Amino acid sequence: MQRPIRNIIKGENPIEKSRLKPWQLKLHEIIFEADTVAGKTFDLALLGAIFTSIVVVMLESVDYLNAEYGTLFITIEWTLTILFTIEYILRILSIGKPVYYIFSFYGIVDLVSTLPSYLGLWVSGGHTLSVIRALRFLRIFRILKLGQYIDSGKIITKALVTSRHKIIVFMFAVLTIVMIIGSLMFLIEGDIEGSGFTSIPRSVYWAIVTLTTVGYGDISPTTALGQTLASILMVLGYAIIAVPTGIMTSEMISANKEVSNHRARSCPNCSFEGHDDDADFCKKCGHTL
Amino acid sequence: MQRPIRNIIKGENPIEKSRLKPWQLKLHEIIFEADTVAGKTFDLALLGAIFTSIVVVMLESVDYLNAEYGTLFITIEWTLTILFTIEYILRILSIGKPVYYIFSFYGIVDLVSTLPSYLGLWVSGGHTLSVIRALRFLRIFRILKLGQYIDSGKIITKALVTSRHKIIVFMFAVLTIVMIIGSLMFLIEGDIEGSGFTSIPRSVYWAIVTLTTVGYGDISPTTALGQTLASILMVLGYAIIAVPTGIMTSEMISANKEVSNHRARSCPNCSFEGHDDDADFCKKCGHTL
Amino acid sequence: MQRPIRNIIKGENPIEKSRLKPWQLKLHEIIFEADTVAGKTFDLALLGAIFTSIVVVMLESVDYLNAEYGTLFITIEWTLTILFTIEYILRILSIGKPVYYIFSFYGIVDLVSTLPSYLGLWVSGGHTLSVIRALRFLRIFRILKLGQYIDSGKIITKALVTSRHKIIVFMFAVLTIVMIIGSLMFLIEGDIEGSGFTSIPRSVYWAIVTLTTVGYGDISPTTALGQTLASILMVLGYAIIAVPTGIMTSEMISANKEVSNHRARSCPNCSFEGHDDDADFCKKCGHTL
Amino acid sequence: MQRPIRNIIKGENPIEKSRLKPWQLKLHEIIFEADTVAGKTFDLALLGAIFTSIVVVMLESVDYLNAEYGTLFITIEWTLTILFTIEYILRILSIGKPVYYIFSFYGIVDLVSTLPSYLGLWVSGGHTLSVIRALRFLRIFRILKLGQYIDSGKIITKALVTSRHKIIVFMFAVLTIVMIIGSLMFLIEGDIEGSGFTSIPRSVYWAIVTLTTVGYGDISPTTALGQTLASILMVLGYAIIAVPTGIMTSEMISANKEVSNHRARSCPNCSFEGHDDDADFCKKCGHTL
Repeated sequence: MQRPIRNIIKGENPIEKSRLKPWQLKLHEIIFEADTVAGKTFDLALLGAIFTSIVVVMLESVDYLNAEYGTLFITIEWTLTILFTIEYILRILSIGKPVYYIFSFYGIVDLVSTLPSYLGLWVSGGHTLSVIRALRFLRIFRILKLGQYIDSGKIITKALVTSRHKIIVFMFAVLTIVMIIGSLMFLIEGDIEGSGFTSIPRSVYWAIVTLTTVGYGDISPTTALGQTLASILMVLGYAIIAVPTGIMTSEMISANKEVSNHRARSCPNCSFEGHDDDADFCKKCGHTL
Repeated sequence: MQRPIRNIIKGENPIEKSRLKPWQLKLHEIIFEADTVAGKTFDLALLGAIFTSIVVVMLESVDYLNAEYGTLFITIEWTLTILFTIEYILRILSIGKPVYYIFSFYGIVDLVSTLPSYLGLWVSGGHTLSVIRALRFLRIFRILKLGQYIDSGKIITKALVTSRHKIIVFMFAVLTIVMIIGSLMFLIEGDIEGSGFTSIPRSVYWAIVTLTTVGYGDISPTTALGQTLASILMVLGYAIIAVPTGIMTSEMISANKEVSNHRARSCPNCSFEGHDDDADFCKKCGHTL
Repeated sequence: MQRPIRNIIKGENPIEKSRLKPWQLKLHEIIFEADTVAGKTFDLALLGAIFTSIVVVMLESVDYLNAEYGTLFITIEWTLTILFTIEYILRILSIGKPVYYIFSFYGIVDLVSTLPSYLGLWVSGGHTLSVIRALRFLRIFRILKLGQYIDSGKIITKALVTSRHKIIVFMFAVLTIVMIIGSLMFLIEGDIEGSGFTSIPRSVYWAIVTLTTVGYGDISPTTALGQTLASILMVLGYAIIAVPTGIMTSEMISANKEVSNHRARSCPNCSFEGHDDDADFCKKCGHTL
Repeated sequence: MQRPIRNIIKGENPIEKSRLKPWQLKLHEIIFEADTVAGKTFDLALLGAIFTSIVVVMLESVDYLNAEYGTLFITIEWTLTILFTIEYILRILSIGKPVYYIFSFYGIVDLVSTLPSYLGLWVSGGHTLSVIRALRFLRIFRILKLGQYIDSGKIITKALVTSRHKIIVFMFAVLTIVMIIGSLMFLIEGDIEGSGFTSIPRSVYWAIVTLTTVGYGDISPTTALGQTLASILMVLGYAIIAVPTGIMTSEMISANKEVSNHRARSCPNCSFEGHDDDADFCKKCGHTL
């Protein structure tokens, strides 16, 4: 029953498939699916291309590497950009209603992460645009359709979705704590010479840095009162991490059960469900499974 | 059975409701409840006003923004303060026994977060007082009465309440560890030139910073012995985070069960709800389920 | 069946109780137990004295406070030391076999945390000794015998004891990771001018600081290779925190069950156990509980 | 059924055992097993030697200690190296098919962690090689065959293996977040004078330092926009730690159950073990339990 949603995300529409010409069906199988050898090969090649492209984006930003290997980077980048463009066009061609793909999540990611290279030709400030190519990383999530990762992804997503209300309530509590303690800290340390607590937003930023136990140390309290308040905030942050963890774990346990139950065999005699994978006989009536 | 407590917190008293005049009942519905369109609209408008007000409090504290937009900030602030004052008066008017609201948690928050603006007119040092307005953030928790967040809030609160004794025991263990290791550290590094461990309170502060894995780095050990002790403290802090997490998770799982059970089967005889999944008879009247 | 162990820890021996004279029994009740009003009052007074004493130890170490209030601190300290000494003697007097108390955990803590004040009179370097008084904090755990904390303490202790083998295996894995990555880091960054990785022990210290997500920043990698290795270590530390948490949580859940089962009522008709606290009828056979 | 794998890891082959001469069998018992007194003594002696050797490797790298005790370190190191070499040869001699041991995990660790000392004699840059000896720490995991640690190790390993797909999906999500937020940060703070965000790889490194809540503080945002983005990243890192924890805990609970179930009821007909608590019939032969 989750198919429709996945289809929207992936930009597919099974009903339209029958309208496709044979070469489109073949192409669809290679590009969108991962059940055939050709499909898997395509996915792995795409994975390699995406990784290479991201490494180039990263290395290009390192000044001394760009000075040395600039031409190489540009060559690789343009080769991959052209390949990604061809891939994008083929994806549109191999689908019944292209509009489904174009406005799907991955369709937009595909476009947005390819465009910047072209825009850089006309628009100045290409430097800025090229960074957007890092979004290509999102495309890697397509490989999750490979094999065993579908179930894992489903369980994690299911647990996150089910627990969203609790997570939001928790987030509000966190926000309230950092707002109030941040403001208090501004009161306490705000007027001290050389203190980092120069405004409430900065103090709230410090409170977030502290509560989440990141602790850069770029701003830190210097008065006894400030350090006491900071200690309370730290212990609070250390303890309340248990809340999202507790939420997530309890959801994960039930998500785990539910997904694994879908595979559960039922006894042909007494229809009892929930047999172990290695069971040969029903544990309730002793009938052969 | 949790109603009375919630009523005290929210400052309501259902018995007194009948004594209210029609216009008071209508006002009560809009201001205190969220089941009608008018009630929801009021809640959302209030939410927006609170957020705006908090943003203004924060930005006012940034010197260069205040220099530029100071007048705008004051205008917004006073408009909102007057609206909050009207809201406060309406809340008192629309309730049977106003004293219930005035001395409720939210009643005090409402008053305390509105007063500072007025006090700033007569008292000097308004700067200090204005920070108290950050308490307005607490008012946002009223929106939790909107829809699905009630259950989530209940589960989290229930898990926190049930596990409070364990959390307190854990907190004492943490306090003992930081006290003893902090004192030891003062012994080890206290006499070293330029060391940050100048007193036991500061050393205990460092121990808290370390145990909670915040790690500002404003104070850090420099001797081999000090770094060894610090390493032990870090590994300890890294490992014992598992304790509150374990406590919370096990409570969350049972809180989850209990709340979801309340929606489960109800007895055909006495209509009692909250039976276990494996129950064959009603646990209240003994009738077959 | 855990009584004997608790008796050893608390230095009590129930069999010897009958030999005590009436005044000793009365004293025992006040000092060692918390069921009577006198016992509770004594515990609370002791708690207050311990807290005061610890605060004095801490403040004494702050130079400018000691300069100002030195005499006050010494007065309080000596008053409390004498009271603690009297308490220690009374504890010995009020017990059948004093040797049980003297060599019990709390007996040693009581002695060791009182002695330093006296030793300071004859021995020079009292400064060093006085820090040992921070051990008094351990005495606070006696209050855990008050009411609901016993169960909480039992569950936490039970979970820790049951999971000790897993925690040790985990600790060895952590130690192996920090040893190997620390050594690698020394190889990579050891020869760089101004690097903090001057020896393997320091590099291992850095690895612990990083893996436990403390991150002081007193030592941090500067080369690309070093930062890559550090990134791997961080993600590892971020992920494997899940291991002790998982261990602890699963133990906590079963410890919780076991302790709460001890209170479980069983049906007088079908002897089914595991009824909820609010159940009036057996959920299996419908019989009155 | 897990035996074959463990044999490959430990380099043993039970079938070949019968071909061994009596002295080889005796040696095998001492060196590879831990059930006899001699075997346990050997294991403990080896443990001591490994620990000593690692301490020497660490202390050797501290310049002033090496200047003082250099000769002592070299003496200990060579004594232990020769003992480890003898041990390695004895291990090969006491096994039927030595090739099984030599190419096993521990066989390679044994060789690789002993060789560097010898290579240092001929090859210059022995300093670099000697660090590899830190791998000796891995050998300590052999002691896990001692007693109660086997089960604990099994449960942890089982939980890690079962949850690997979910952990990989989670890691990809983490990688995506740090890539995208790192790139954004480079856009925002990259052009600021004295900023640490000089390239995308460095910004991604910063994002990892922040998301994992390590927070060195060697690079930290200075603009308001940068600090806002950093705050989001921190809260994200603080919250999503709940995901691996949830995954691990749910697996740990079921791994715990499974391992403890193996000790539960066994079928009176086919003696199959590992039945669920609610099973009435053997799941392998259908016989009544």
